[in-house]
Amino acid sequence: MNGAESLIRALVRSGVDTCFTNPGTSEIHIVAALDRVTEVRCVLSLFEGVVTGAADGYARMTEKPACTLLHLGPGFGNGLANLHNASRAQVPIVNVIGQHATYHLPHDTPLTSDIEAIAQPYSKWMRTSRSSAEVGHDAAEAVAAARTAPGQIATLIVPADVAWSEGGSVTALPGVLPTAPTSAAETIKHAATMLRSRERTAILMTGNALYGKGLATAGRIAVATGAKLFAPYPVTRLERGKHLPAVDRIAYVLEQGIEQLKEFRQLILVGARPPMAYFAYPGKDSAFTSPECAIFTLANPGENYVDTLEALEAELLPQRTRGVRDQVVTPKSVAENTERLALPEGGITLSGLAAVVGALLPENTIVVDESMTSGRGMMAATTESRAHDWLGNTGGSIGIAMPMAVGAAVACPDRPVLCLTADGSGMYTLQALWTMAREGLNVTTVVFANRDYAVLKREFSYLGVGNPGTRALGMFEIGHPDLDWVQLAKGMGVPGTRVTSLAEFAKALRNGFESEGPTLIEVPL
Amino acid sequence: MNGAESLIRALVRSGVDTCFTNPGTSEIHIVAALDRVTEVRCVLSLFEGVVTGAADGYARMTEKPACTLLHLGPGFGNGLANLHNASRAQVPIVNVIGQHATYHLPHDTPLTSDIEAIAQPYSKWMRTSRSSAEVGHDAAEAVAAARTAPGQIATLIVPADVAWSEGGSVTALPGVLPTAPTSAAETIKHAATMLRSRERTAILMTGNALYGKGLATAGRIAVATGAKLFAPYPVTRLERGKHLPAVDRIAYVLEQGIEQLKEFRQLILVGARPPMAYFAYPGKDSAFTSPECAIFTLANPGENYVDTLEALEAELLPQRTRGVRDQVVTPKSVAENTERLALPEGGITLSGLAAVVGALLPENTIVVDESMTSGRGMMAATTESRAHDWLGNTGGSIGIAMPMAVGAAVACPDRPVLCLTADGSGMYTLQALWTMAREGLNVTTVVFANRDYAVLKREFSYLGVGNPGTRALGMFEIGHPDLDWVQLAKGMGVPGTRVTSLAEFAKALRNGFESEGPTLIEVPL
Repeated sequence: MNGAESLIRALVRSGVDTCFTNPGTSEIHIVAALDRVTEVRCVLSLFEGVVTGAADGYARMTEKPACTLLHLGPGFGNGLANLHNASRAQVPIVNVIGQHATYHLPHDTPLTSDIEAIAQPYSKWMRTSRSSAEVGHDAAEAVAAARTAPGQIATLIVPADVAWSEGGSVTALPGVLPTAPTSAAETIKHAATMLRSRERTAILMTGNALYGKGLATAGRIAVATGAKLFAPYPVTRLERGKHLPAVDRIAYVLEQGIEQLKEFRQLILVGARPPMAYFAYPGKDSAFTSPECAIFTLANPGENYVDTLEALEAELLPQRTRGVRDQVVTPKSVAENTERLALPEGGITLSGLAAVVGALLPENTIVVDESMTSGRGMMAATTESRAHDWLGNTGGSIGIAMPMAVGAAVACPDRPVLCLTADGSGMYTLQALWTMAREGLNVTTVVFANRDYAVLKREFSYLGVGNPGTRALGMFEIGHPDLDWVQLAKGMGVPGTRVTSLAEFAKALRNGFESEGPTLIEVPL
Repeated sequence: MNGAESLIRALVRSGVDTCFTNPGTSEIHIVAALDRVTEVRCVLSLFEGVVTGAADGYARMTEKPACTLLHLGPGFGNGLANLHNASRAQVPIVNVIGQHATYHLPHDTPLTSDIEAIAQPYSKWMRTSRSSAEVGHDAAEAVAAARTAPGQIATLIVPADVAWSEGGSVTALPGVLPTAPTSAAETIKHAATMLRSRERTAILMTGNALYGKGLATAGRIAVATGAKLFAPYPVTRLERGKHLPAVDRIAYVLEQGIEQLKEFRQLILVGARPPMAYFAYPGKDSAFTSPECAIFTLANPGENYVDTLEALEAELLPQRTRGVRDQVVTPKSVAENTERLALPEGGITLSGLAAVVGALLPENTIVVDESMTSGRGMMAATTESRAHDWLGNTGGSIGIAMPMAVGAAVACPDRPVLCLTADGSGMYTLQALWTMAREGLNVTTVVFANRDYAVLKREFSYLGVGNPGTRALGMFEIGHPDLDWVQLAKGMGVPGTRVTSLAEFAKALRNGFESEGPTLIEVPL
C-alpha cells in the first residue's frame, strides 16, 4: 500500500467519508487512492473557495469533518477566505494539501511555495508528512485534532513522494475521543445565582447550544427563569421554528444591537464572545452592551456546552428528572407545523419576500443566509415557520452562501436547502452552482439582486465621510452591466428564473422546494 | 489631510495612477480619498483574484506598479493565487490592505485576522502603517520597494484609524530609482568566450530581455554568434512576430523540453533559472538539460538584463557603434507585416484554431495565454504573425488569463488583447468578464472548452498510476453538466458566441478584434 492509500484508508477508519476537492498534479496519487477506496464520496468543485465553504457547511450539519483535497499553496490560498469563516464557525475540517516531492522542492519550480507559511494562519493543527510509513498515522491525528472541541481546522501537507512511495500503514482514531469538559461547578452555581436574581438576564450562546439537546435545555432554562436567549449575528447553526425555543439573533447594525440588549443587566455567555460591532466607527464604542451589564462566561470554547447547560438546569430545577425533561421538549417531539402563515402578494418588497419565505419554508429546511442588507428581515419573518436550521456567515468574509449550501446538501440529502445570497456576495464563489448541478443537490438559491455593495454605501455615510461621489459609487455599485443570474446559473447547468412580483416569487420558491436538484431565483430589487 | 488622502497622494506622486480594487468597510476612508484624488483610475472587480491578476498584467505591460486595494486578510487570501503568479513574474505590485482600527483589533471580531502572517509569504516588502503622519511616507517606500529590480510585491497594511485620522503628509519617491547594476565585466567576458566557442549555445532569458531593446540586442547577438534564444515556459512577456528575433519557448512537457535542448552544450541564463519540470515524476530527473550541458548565469534577477546584453554585444562586436545598432534592428523600425498567412477551413482542430489565430492576429496584439493543453500549438502557429506580445502564466496557478487580460487592456487601451483560456482554468476567475464589460476593455476571450482538466488526465498516466477509473475521472472531467460559456459571458455583460467550424472561428475572431469592448468565443472541443 502506498502512502496515498494509507492516508485515505486512515481517514475512512477515523470516520471521514466525504472529500471536497479541486486537485492538481501533486495530488494525483491521492486521487488514484480515492479511485480505489470507495468509502469516500468525492465532490469536485471548480474553485477552492467552494471546496472549503462546502466543508464548513458539511461540518455544521454533521458535527464531523469532511476532508478537503487542495493543490499546493495557491490552492489553499483560493480556499483561505472560507477557511477564515470556518475558523470562526469553530467547525472541524481536515485539509489535505499536496506538496512537491521532497527532492523536487529545492528546484524552486514555478508552483513551489511555502505551504506551511500560507496554511499556518488558519490551521490550528498542521503537519507535513515525512514518510509513507507515517502519513496514515498523521491523517488519523489530523482528524483527532479537527474534532477537538469545539471543532477546528487541521491541515496535513503531503509531499508527492510520500504519497507515491510504498510502505503505508493505516491507523485510526482511538475509538472514543476525549469528551469536552463541563464547566466548573462553581461557575455553574454562579450562573444559577444570576438567573435566580431579579435582574433581566440574557444568555448568548453558540455552537451546539443552539440546536438539538442544547437548545431544548436552554429553552427550558429560559422558561423557568425568564432569561432571554440570543445567538450572535455570526451564527454557525441555529435551530428555529414555531415550536422551538425562541432565540433572537443579535443585529449586525450597532445601534440595533444596542437596542436589543439595552434592557439586560446580566449577560451569560455560552461559548460566545461579548457582542461587538464588526468594525470600529470613529467616536463610537464597539460594544453592544452597556457598561452596567455584568458579563459572565458560563462556558468557553472547548468546554461542553450541552453538558454545562444540563448541569445548570439541574442546579436551577433539581426536582425534575433528566428522563422526563428529555421527553417533554426535545425538538423531535414537536408536531409538524401545518398551520399556514399568510402569503403576501403584490410588488417586490424586502418584507414581502421575507414573508413569502416564512410562509413556504418546508419542514426541516436548512437555510443558508448571506442575504446581506436585503435579508435583514428574514429572521423575524421565519420565527413562526416550520422547524428549520439557520446557517450564517460566521467570519464576515462574503462568498460562503452557495458553497456552504453545497456542503449542507451533501451532508443532509433528505433535507431541502434554501440558500439566500446577494448578488455581490454571490459573485465571489458562483462556481458553487456547477457543483450543485453536477451532484443534483436539492438547493434553492435566491439571489437578492440590488446591483450594489449596499452595505458599503451604508457604511460610507455611517462612517461620517459624507455622500459618496461618482468615483466612490463606482466601487459600490455593481450594475453597469447588471449581472444576469439566470444566465449565470444556466451557464453552470442550474435552471433559473427571474421574478418581478411576490406571486411569481412564491411560485418559483415552491417549485424550487418541490423539484429535485438545484434551482435559482433572481429577485431584482 | 487625513492618512487615507496622504496615502493616495503619495502613491500618485510616486507614479501610481491605477488602482484595481474590491474594497470593504475597513477601506472606506481610502475609497473616499480615491473619490477626491482624480489622478488614479479605479477599476472594480467582483473577486480579488481578478484584482491581483489584473495588477500583474498591468505591470507586465507598463513596467510600473498599479496598486491593489484589498479588504483585510481574507480579501488578500482571495488574491493570493494570482500574487503567487505575479511573484514568479517578478513584476512590481503595491498591495494596500485595510485593517481594523488599532483599538478595535483586541476585540477579535469576526473579520479579524493576522494580516501580516497571511500576506508575508507573497510580500517581499511589508509594513503596517503606524500613524497618519507616516502612511504617506510608507506608501512612497512601498512603491520604491515594488520597483526594486526586477520588480516585486510590496504590501502596505493600513489600519482604519490611521486612514481616518488627520495629520497625513505626502512624500514621494526619490526622482530617480537606483539603476539595477550590469553584470560584472568578468561574467560578461566569460559569456562572450562561451559564445565565441564552437559549442552549440542556447541563451535562456526572462524579464525585459524578452522585449524591446533587450530582445533586439539579444537577437543581434544570436545572429552574430549562432546562439539560439529561448524563453522559459512560464514566460512573463515575450515580444514576437515575423520581423522580430525568433525566441523559442521551452515546452511544458519534460520530454519535449529535453528534445528542444538536447543539441546544446552550453546554456547562458539571463535572469532565468535552469529549466526544470514543474513537477517530479517517479524515477525521472526533473532537469531539461543533460549533465553535459554547461550552465552559466550571465545575469541574475536584480541585475540589469538590457545593459548586460548590450555590454555583451559590445564585447562580442566592438567595431559596431551603439547608435547604428539601435537604428538597424529595434522593433519600432520593422515594417508592418501585411502579408497574410493562410487561413485554414473545415472542422475544429487544435492546429486549425492555432493557424487561424496566427493568420488573423492584428499588429500589436497582446496575447494572454492560459490555453493549457489545447493551446500547445499556438506558439508555433504565430511565429510568422504580425508583431505581438505574449504573456504566460508564470506561477502555474491557473486562473490568471482573464484577470491578466483586464490589466493588460487597462495598461494599453490602444492595443487589442487576445485572451486564450481553457474552460477549467477560466472558471477560477470568470468574474473578470464583468470588469471587461464594465470598463469596455478591448479583449477577445477564446475559451477552449474540452470539458476536462486534460492536463491532469495526462499527468495521471504520465505518473504511471494506470488508467483513471470512474471516480478519478469524476475529478478530472468537468462536463456533466457542460459549462455554457456564452451564457456565462452574457450573464456578465460580455457578448459571446459558440463556434463549430474554423470558418466560424475566424469570423468570430475577426469580429472580436474589430469590435469595441469585450467579446467571448467558446470553442467546444
